[in-house]
Amino acid sequence: MKKLINDPKNVVAEALEGVALAHPGLVTVVADPAHIVRADAPVQGKVGLVSGGGSGHEPLHGGFVGYGMLDAAVPGPVFTSPTPDPIVAATKAVDGGKGVLHIVKNYTGDVLNFETAADLALAEGIEVRAVVVDDDVAVKDSLYTAGRRGVAGTVLIEKIAGAAAQRGDDLDAVAAIAEKVNGQVRSMGVALTAPTVPHAGEPSFSIGDDEIEIGIGIHGEPGRERVGLEPADQIVDRILHPILEDLPFASGDKVLLFVNGMGGTPLVELYIAFRRAAHVLAEQGIEVSRTLVGNYVTSLEMQGFSITVLKLDDELTELWDGPVQTAALRWGR
Amino acid sequence: MKKLINDPKNVVAEALEGVALAHPGLVTVVADPAHIVRADAPVQGKVGLVSGGGSGHEPLHGGFVGYGMLDAAVPGPVFTSPTPDPIVAATKAVDGGKGVLHIVKNYTGDVLNFETAADLALAEGIEVRAVVVDDDVAVKDSLYTAGRRGVAGTVLIEKIAGAAAQRGDDLDAVAAIAEKVNGQVRSMGVALTAPTVPHAGEPSFSIGDDEIEIGIGIHGEPGRERVGLEPADQIVDRILHPILEDLPFASGDKVLLFVNGMGGTPLVELYIAFRRAAHVLAEQGIEVSRTLVGNYVTSLEMQGFSITVLKLDDELTELWDGPVQTAALRWGR
Repeated sequence: MKKLINDPKNVVAEALEGVALAHPGLVTVVADPAHIVRADAPVQGKVGLVSGGGSGHEPLHGGFVGYGMLDAAVPGPVFTSPTPDPIVAATKAVDGGKGVLHIVKNYTGDVLNFETAADLALAEGIEVRAVVVDDDVAVKDSLYTAGRRGVAGTVLIEKIAGAAAQRGDDLDAVAAIAEKVNGQVRSMGVALTAPTVPHAGEPSFSIGDDEIEIGIGIHGEPGRERVGLEPADQIVDRILHPILEDLPFASGDKVLLFVNGMGGTPLVELYIAFRRAAHVLAEQGIEVSRTLVGNYVTSLEMQGFSITVLKLDDELTELWDGPVQTAALRWGR
Repeated sequence: MKKLINDPKNVVAEALEGVALAHPGLVTVVADPAHIVRADAPVQGKVGLVSGGGSGHEPLHGGFVGYGMLDAAVPGPVFTSPTPDPIVAATKAVDGGKGVLHIVKNYTGDVLNFETAADLALAEGIEVRAVVVDDDVAVKDSLYTAGRRGVAGTVLIEKIAGAAAQRGDDLDAVAAIAEKVNGQVRSMGVALTAPTVPHAGEPSFSIGDDEIEIGIGIHGEPGRERVGLEPADQIVDRILHPILEDLPFASGDKVLLFVNGMGGTPLVELYIAFRRAAHVLAEQGIEVSRTLVGNYVTSLEMQGFSITVLKLDDELTELWDGPVQTAALRWGR
């Protein structure tokens, strides 16, 4: 295992210390129980947004804490759900009197622990709603998950719901926007290599030098099939078609096209994939009106990528365009 | 070789097509001779900024084209200097009547081809000045380079000189700011693994499973020494101390601390490195007043990172903070 770390046990704690030192005006980091909150939290009169999950997917979620997006992120150990304790602490820290929305990727541990935390917060008088993100079309049930997994579409939900909260929508409205985005977003991924979890010390799965895993999850969970390495255009087609057929997306739709790197894939390769995806959408009469390309939901150093397509309307577009100021997404402010 | 590409010969051309499709309002991509320019180029009455070099270091330079930073970027083949032709084309495309500054990383091929291009542009009546970036303290002369190499400090020069041009400074003043930043910025890097150039098909160098290369260049050129894998804190110390001793940086200085990923290193690891670097600077009485953490000057999928320290004053700080709108850096607008 070749990593830029000290003790594998301290990876998350030391990284969080780095986040605190790197972004002092933007976020406050609480070491125990570990959570990251907006430096100006709680924002009075605004719905609070909390997300979280296992670490190793950075910048998700800590990199999306700030104006116009999340109020707090709760990082668990690498690839492991956070316990209810830090989720409760984060929920209390961001409660500005208008309630808190939990944005939860659909993994069994995450869902259970966020539910428990919501009950505990409610017992302290904080109204909590949750949206469970399940945008991955690759498999129905999988390792760690009943139903579809939550993957890169989470970023789009955090941004758009965050903008709704920032403009002053109430808890019901913010939750409804988040559910609407989840209903209109679809993703699927591919792995070329496996990630290595620091405390495990070995790659999460084995994969041949000439093999790729189609429909991979962000923790290296198995996907739909393993095939031989192919040209990028064919790989894109293999994951884009199931995405488009699932909603389904149709001619005349306006969409946000998001090509997400899983960590170890160079940006030139992501743009090659974006190019093919944009061509396929154009051929089908689907208009790409917003775009995102880069490493936003990663799986440590795994080489691979995912494609996410979100059907837009005027409201979602306006919320996507709204100002945001976080470590990993920043514009308009 | 496991890459998300089609034909290795088409990597740069197809990636550029992806950039054009992903950022249509921001940049215009010319396929032949290949260059990326601001969508609103030329900006009349503003000094134009052009940078470039081999591809494979993305987002450098194309990701930094836009308001407040570069007017154009000229991507060569992977790890290979662009020829004079596209540099001339980019220079002409961004000439708004106030002259053009070339920002050139110190590699022999880059320097020669930018010089030739400057002569050709001058023959067409465009005034051109150049700043040669040589921030890498690792080695004096190296493969491809006489003198020190230009590495991650280039991003800071492009941002700060770009802000000076955007506020209306004339060519002499913009060049002077760029030279000033180059005089006050120092960098050094480390590799854990080697990158593979697509058309080569093999790793650029061989390195043992328990070895790291201290002082690596961004094309995998040899550095100062090869040592066994160590804890992150010790690795940071190995490259930070030569940086601090070189300028030298001293107690009371205010600095921008930039921890740059080389492509394949997870963000958690970059924050662990940032944490150690910030601690060392604090112990020496050096104030970290601005920060940057992420993959900005990469070497394809190489695992590794570099540290860059820039001594700030009020003017440089104000220019760093100035609004910027590019694919890879965006704030204040």
